[in-house]
Amino acid sequence: MNSIFNQSIPPDIGHEIIERLHVLAQYTEQEGMMTRTYLTPAHRGAAGQIAAWMRDAGMTVRRDAVGNVIGRYEGTVAGAPALVTGSHFDTVRNGGIYDGLLGILLPISCIAGWHKQGMQFPFPIEVIAFSEEEGVRFKAPMLGSRAIAGTFEQRVLNHTDDQGISMRDAMQAADLQPSQIAAAAAPRDSIAAFIEVHIEQGPVLLNKELALGVVTAISGATRFMLELEGIAGHAGTVPMDMRRDAAMAAAEFALFVEQRCGNMPHLVGTIGQWTVPNGATNVIPGRAILSLDVRAGDDAQRLAAIADITAELERISIRRNVRSTLTKTYETSSAICADWLQQGWLAALQRQGCDSCSLPSGAGHDAMAIAAIAPIAMLFVRCGNGGISHHPTETMTMEDATLASKVFMDFVEHFDQLSASKLAS
Amino acid sequence: MNSIFNQSIPPDIGHEIIERLHVLAQYTEQEGMMTRTYLTPAHRGAAGQIAAWMRDAGMTVRRDAVGNVIGRYEGTVAGAPALVTGSHFDTVRNGGIYDGLLGILLPISCIAGWHKQGMQFPFPIEVIAFSEEEGVRFKAPMLGSRAIAGTFEQRVLNHTDDQGISMRDAMQAADLQPSQIAAAAAPRDSIAAFIEVHIEQGPVLLNKELALGVVTAISGATRFMLELEGIAGHAGTVPMDMRRDAAMAAAEFALFVEQRCGNMPHLVGTIGQWTVPNGATNVIPGRAILSLDVRAGDDAQRLAAIADITAELERISIRRNVRSTLTKTYETSSAICADWLQQGWLAALQRQGCDSCSLPSGAGHDAMAIAAIAPIAMLFVRCGNGGISHHPTETMTMEDATLASKVFMDFVEHFDQLSASKLAS
Repeated sequence: MNSIFNQSIPPDIGHEIIERLHVLAQYTEQEGMMTRTYLTPAHRGAAGQIAAWMRDAGMTVRRDAVGNVIGRYEGTVAGAPALVTGSHFDTVRNGGIYDGLLGILLPISCIAGWHKQGMQFPFPIEVIAFSEEEGVRFKAPMLGSRAIAGTFEQRVLNHTDDQGISMRDAMQAADLQPSQIAAAAAPRDSIAAFIEVHIEQGPVLLNKELALGVVTAISGATRFMLELEGIAGHAGTVPMDMRRDAAMAAAEFALFVEQRCGNMPHLVGTIGQWTVPNGATNVIPGRAILSLDVRAGDDAQRLAAIADITAELERISIRRNVRSTLTKTYETSSAICADWLQQGWLAALQRQGCDSCSLPSGAGHDAMAIAAIAPIAMLFVRCGNGGISHHPTETMTMEDATLASKVFMDFVEHFDQLSASKLAS
Repeated sequence: MNSIFNQSIPPDIGHEIIERLHVLAQYTEQEGMMTRTYLTPAHRGAAGQIAAWMRDAGMTVRRDAVGNVIGRYEGTVAGAPALVTGSHFDTVRNGGIYDGLLGILLPISCIAGWHKQGMQFPFPIEVIAFSEEEGVRFKAPMLGSRAIAGTFEQRVLNHTDDQGISMRDAMQAADLQPSQIAAAAAPRDSIAAFIEVHIEQGPVLLNKELALGVVTAISGATRFMLELEGIAGHAGTVPMDMRRDAAMAAAEFALFVEQRCGNMPHLVGTIGQWTVPNGATNVIPGRAILSLDVRAGDDAQRLAAIADITAELERISIRRNVRSTLTKTYETSSAICADWLQQGWLAALQRQGCDSCSLPSGAGHDAMAIAAIAPIAMLFVRCGNGGISHHPTETMTMEDATLASKVFMDFVEHFDQLSASKLAS
């Protein structure tokens, strides 16, 4: 197979991918920034461009009821379940140009290579450009992948954007049919596996000097808002031992979260919002409001950490005589990447002579939604600039794009063999 | 002397003081709230009412160039330096009705009692109703007492209020003469002592179940703004040990301040403002901005604490790889209450059979400015409601007002004797 592989990889595949990422970057709502939210003109323009490249690569293309652009590269065996890949083409506001798009453009370029060689597989390959993942415009994420998974929630059609336009009206204005969303769900057993290539959006690969990594699971997450209520007071007249300072309780709580989550390798805890309402230099804080976000690839690990954090909050509240209200605002379980697909990535990496590591994904991805209906796996590609993402300075190299393409092609070229050995085991 | 005293104290003095506090509370800028800032119609109305009560009490009354209302009760010895007392009649926005006013109305009622008895002392008594102490309208505090002390800064005349009106224009509109402020300074050696009666504005007396306390010093204070700069990052993708979380550095710093200042009885450290700019649930804080306010009755104690806090900040910054910028925004030394005057208060309290304690004032007061030209001392009166002040629920009892009046009258009636023994020692 390696000999076939060596013929089919164009030497400039990384160059093509990077060039196309920059072409798509021009489809933005805000001049000088990368902002492309669901169903805006920029978003619809990008969809058209992606569809054109899919056709050039030898795929048939269709658009489903939520605006997903789906390219299909037929296989040699009629009725075989598809190997599905893809990622999203919407962005956050003032985000980067690699997030999501890499996982669409990389497979398109790989398929174009096979198409040029006249090469097909015993299974079809579908590339899905998911129309919505970030949840920016209508405050509801993963609309595209949920539609495919059959888990799209009808009530989000009533969500409105900042201009008061409902999702339903925006869809109709874009010639989409909200009533047909249920029909967008992938038929049962039509997907053999879903694999997603994505930039890491973190610093792990960069710090380990590795271009690529295999994702073990997409972390589950629990989010809370915490309100602490003590007693405000004059900064000069209330002795330290008579204070009920809400912000000091918050500080103690935060350091416990940091210490508890720092004890486990794939557990993270973040306090991103810190607010002392009406805080003034000469006033002891009477109230503090914090957010808490806890994630882990392993659900039991996350829940154990939350139990410890909750117990410590209770102790701090009692000792400091500060009232605490912890409200859970969001919770999702982790999505485990299928072991046989992880093994498939690792074998492809090894064949390509590529060092790598396994790591959980702390960020959510479309694969998380697809996990409801098919085995999933992800390949992470190293980010530059300290691993920053969702930011204009998000970056990755052309060399890494080429390497990821080689590994992706190797994986696909061995997929039939991998599936067979999985069925045999 | 006690026999004279017992004649001169009207049994309902506390009642009169509380009643007048409520009369003055009607002079407010905001219906349903106690707000009386410098030179507003409410402020000028209060000045007129205070002047009327001073005249009724047998005083001659004048208004100086910054609007201080000065009542003079003549003594029997021509040219003797005055015993001066008083406090301020402006308020914070939505404040309490006792702050400042008690120290004006209590002496007026006491003098009215002596006047009724035809009783005079070998020294004149002056009651100054300071026009401005809180610094609310023009962001410059203690305008009244600084004018008396000769430390009024001419540049604050250019300060403007929220409507863009300069202090100079506001003064002229109120028939005050900014050019005559220097002439408002008290002549050299004209003040034998300045004594101020004030609500404590804190919980110390309340917690000790004491009505009255003798102030040892008005605390010096240093204020800083602290900016911490780490690296923002995705809450899910950056492992705990790769983070440079500015808010966690802030939390560690805050707890050190609390612990360091908690070690000394009359030292306080407060972090009143906590800001994580653009804080979001799923973003690791890249920046945090805090205020720091450190106060102590003893300057050396305050400076030693600041040195330790600064050194610890340096250690935290290095260990967490977070850049810190600590900017001093304000600093003032403590004003020590004259030992002989403190002894005078303690003797009066003892003669009146009143338990008390000595404590520093963590809040600033007009006496702090007057300390530049005369020996000062203060008598604190217990607050209710946990010691809250600068708030509508600020309170004190009629009984405590009566007791404070008795002690004040006793102090004044023994002041000549106290001065003589001080000169002799």
